[in-house]
Amino acid sequence: MNYKMMGKFIGRILIVEAVFMVPAMLISLWEKEFASVIAFMWSLGALLVAAGALLWLGRGSQKKFYAKEGLACVGLSWIAMSLLGCLPFYLSGVVPNYIDALFEIVSGFTTTGASILPQVEGLPRGILYWRSFSHWLGGMGVLVFLLAISSTGGNGFTMHLLRAESPGPNVGKLVPKMRKTATILYLIYILLTVLDVIFLLLGDMPLFEAVCTAFGTVGTGGFGVKNDSIAGYSPYIQNVCTVFMLLCGVNFSCYYLLLVKQFKSVLKDEELRLYLGVVLGSILLIVWNLRGFYATLGETVRHAAFQVVTIMTTTGFATTDYELWPGLSKAIMLCLMILGASAGSTGGGFKCGRALLVAKSLHRSVRQVVHPQKVQVVRLNGHAVDEKVLQNTNAYLAAYAITVVFSFLLVSVDGFSITTNLSAVLACFNNIGPGFDAVGPTCNYSAYSAFSKIVLTWDMLAGRLEIFPMLILLSRSTWKHR
Amino acid sequence: MNYKMMGKFIGRILIVEAVFMVPAMLISLWEKEFASVIAFMWSLGALLVAAGALLWLGRGSQKKFYAKEGLACVGLSWIAMSLLGCLPFYLSGVVPNYIDALFEIVSGFTTTGASILPQVEGLPRGILYWRSFSHWLGGMGVLVFLLAISSTGGNGFTMHLLRAESPGPNVGKLVPKMRKTATILYLIYILLTVLDVIFLLLGDMPLFEAVCTAFGTVGTGGFGVKNDSIAGYSPYIQNVCTVFMLLCGVNFSCYYLLLVKQFKSVLKDEELRLYLGVVLGSILLIVWNLRGFYATLGETVRHAAFQVVTIMTTTGFATTDYELWPGLSKAIMLCLMILGASAGSTGGGFKCGRALLVAKSLHRSVRQVVHPQKVQVVRLNGHAVDEKVLQNTNAYLAAYAITVVFSFLLVSVDGFSITTNLSAVLACFNNIGPGFDAVGPTCNYSAYSAFSKIVLTWDMLAGRLEIFPMLILLSRSTWKHR
Repeated sequence: MNYKMMGKFIGRILIVEAVFMVPAMLISLWEKEFASVIAFMWSLGALLVAAGALLWLGRGSQKKFYAKEGLACVGLSWIAMSLLGCLPFYLSGVVPNYIDALFEIVSGFTTTGASILPQVEGLPRGILYWRSFSHWLGGMGVLVFLLAISSTGGNGFTMHLLRAESPGPNVGKLVPKMRKTATILYLIYILLTVLDVIFLLLGDMPLFEAVCTAFGTVGTGGFGVKNDSIAGYSPYIQNVCTVFMLLCGVNFSCYYLLLVKQFKSVLKDEELRLYLGVVLGSILLIVWNLRGFYATLGETVRHAAFQVVTIMTTTGFATTDYELWPGLSKAIMLCLMILGASAGSTGGGFKCGRALLVAKSLHRSVRQVVHPQKVQVVRLNGHAVDEKVLQNTNAYLAAYAITVVFSFLLVSVDGFSITTNLSAVLACFNNIGPGFDAVGPTCNYSAYSAFSKIVLTWDMLAGRLEIFPMLILLSRSTWKHR
Repeated sequence: MNYKMMGKFIGRILIVEAVFMVPAMLISLWEKEFASVIAFMWSLGALLVAAGALLWLGRGSQKKFYAKEGLACVGLSWIAMSLLGCLPFYLSGVVPNYIDALFEIVSGFTTTGASILPQVEGLPRGILYWRSFSHWLGGMGVLVFLLAISSTGGNGFTMHLLRAESPGPNVGKLVPKMRKTATILYLIYILLTVLDVIFLLLGDMPLFEAVCTAFGTVGTGGFGVKNDSIAGYSPYIQNVCTVFMLLCGVNFSCYYLLLVKQFKSVLKDEELRLYLGVVLGSILLIVWNLRGFYATLGETVRHAAFQVVTIMTTTGFATTDYELWPGLSKAIMLCLMILGASAGSTGGGFKCGRALLVAKSLHRSVRQVVHPQKVQVVRLNGHAVDEKVLQNTNAYLAAYAITVVFSFLLVSVDGFSITTNLSAVLACFNNIGPGFDAVGPTCNYSAYSAFSKIVLTWDMLAGRLEIFPMLILLSRSTWKHR
């Protein structure tokens, strides 16, 4: 293991985090929340000391860097970021328990949006800003950000990192240079955020709330600044959120293709079609299933669309309590939790693109039985898919299933219902936030024991980083000397 | 498609079924249940007419036979067997609805044991015998039986059939000749059944009940002849059931190896170790979790062992209501439902052997990242596993996941709870029987609509035949002319 290089890299990540913590501190200062200001100052100090130590230990590192180091580095960066990033919550006294604070910030960075706070109104604004901003930073990925602003190491090195942090089965390099790819991704991301803020301001939302809500929307996170999430806002605001959540669940390479005017490839993109098809189909089915549940058809459509999009993109905002919906609608929501958004978006879950590959490779298996003498190729968007990608997708399905089963068993020690435990694991692992029953959209995760919170925290990180960067940290062979 | 050969084959299966229906009719005659006797006579008539027609249509068939025809043939045989096999239930008036009767017999043949009958005591004995016997016939497979007694076609043909009907990722040919393999399997099966009957008789169980219970145990089915399943019998009888269920969840090739004195290979068998390890670990965890729940430790161990084994082997008998157990115990039961018994046993589920392969191939993927330059091989019992088997196992996992998700959505139309619907699908698809909530061990499936019953019937068949023989019936390419 190239520990020096890894130390240097994690040190840089912590500096980025420190820089982004400054605005939160300034907001606290402006609002005269002095307890929070002091908490931020201590946290900043801890970040800088840790970063300094890591950079000093990592001086004079070799350039040689392997895939396993890239994966381990990503996993460790996120853990380090979280261990220090939760300090403002803990030191300001907003979250009196360190494990709870860690759960909350990991929920932020992984864009899960599961909270242990029973209410958020009245909390210091600096803290609320940092909580919402963690979604924005985690949504596109802090490493991708670092790649965009610096030129660390060679192209191979950055490729390993980008591959480990970006959601989806295969990372599309938009342009040959990784740094430029990262920059383009972030520019699209910033543009979407700014547009969202503007549309929210047009609906008379106060600036602070608009910015925080946009962080939660564009990062597909789900932390809000109101106790009732988005339910208290006007239908216009709710619809703006629906549209921007939907937009951020799309593979960002589609936007790049739009920018370079390749409209045809976007229209023909199979993952985009599946994603939009599932959203539309689910909304229609739920509207049909909910007839008579709300006063007007318009209200039904608005709530159905919001809830479908918020769960499918794994955001986790709410405008109504879907727990009260009839069985079929709830079943659809549970399935959307598992499916998730598109690869290469800020959303989590199994990902539409991966589901497509799993279904196509299953169909190939059936065809192979029917025509054993023919060589069968799996095609996506007209191109043959590499067998290695298919193998990895199947390995991912296995890792996904095993993680869900074991996490479910571990959190069941707390004795909640099957629905609560299963949906809690799915909601954390898929980075959604709300589940069903005791972790439903009107409830929170505070009732779980510290042990279960650690399991769910691990699940959130594993889900956001697509399992392997976290799994590799548990493998003995990673730490063995060659 | 070689329709003639398929017709001939299905015709023979129906004749086997007719032969096995005669004892049930004789029992009805002996018990003077004349309505049932007439129902059996009409059913026998229908079976013989259908068989005769199929054999006549299939005369002069070609010997050429492909894998897809083997798979389709197995799927169609089971459907034909069920459509006609449920006639005694329907015509005798015991089950007044044909869809319900079909559900009941498919539940029998697939060794699921899910019932739509609220109570079974007082039903005609001939009908009860046929219901329990369907487990025995389906447990080892009616096609395997046919192979054992006749020499249909060449070795390749029988291989396709055996592979399609036998549970597990790869069919171990015990001996080079398929016919001999089938005969050995059936002899072990009969021996276990006879031993079970003897042990039950020693516990003062009446002969009729002992035979029916043995059919349900050795076939890992779960239909009983008492309303409270096995709960009313003595602890001795309950323990006998536990032991025989456990024995029938073992890969039958282990027994063959014992017969030819290869004790070492049995002791080293990784699937057997996993199977017994999971059983033992689950019992210990549940006993710990249940402390104080039953009066004595002995009672706790007996109930825990019975319930773990009945669910893991996918039998579905009950001696206590596990719905009342605490959260962790219920979570363990849910996971056991998915895992299931060993490959090559009469039990259903995902199978321990397959889970081993999935876990091992995932571990390989992790090792491949760590040492990308090394060729990594997956080993089972010391031998390298063929990549094709791994690919099929992963395809099976995908098919499993997709089937569960879609079935869950379809049965959710009826509006029951998430736990009810999810566990109903898992209990039927894994051929267990009881689930949780409205389909828990003290309830039955009668509340579901006819539509949901058809979905669950399909799931039972797909689960018993390991999905592909049923999936191939749905694929367009199967029915296209070359």
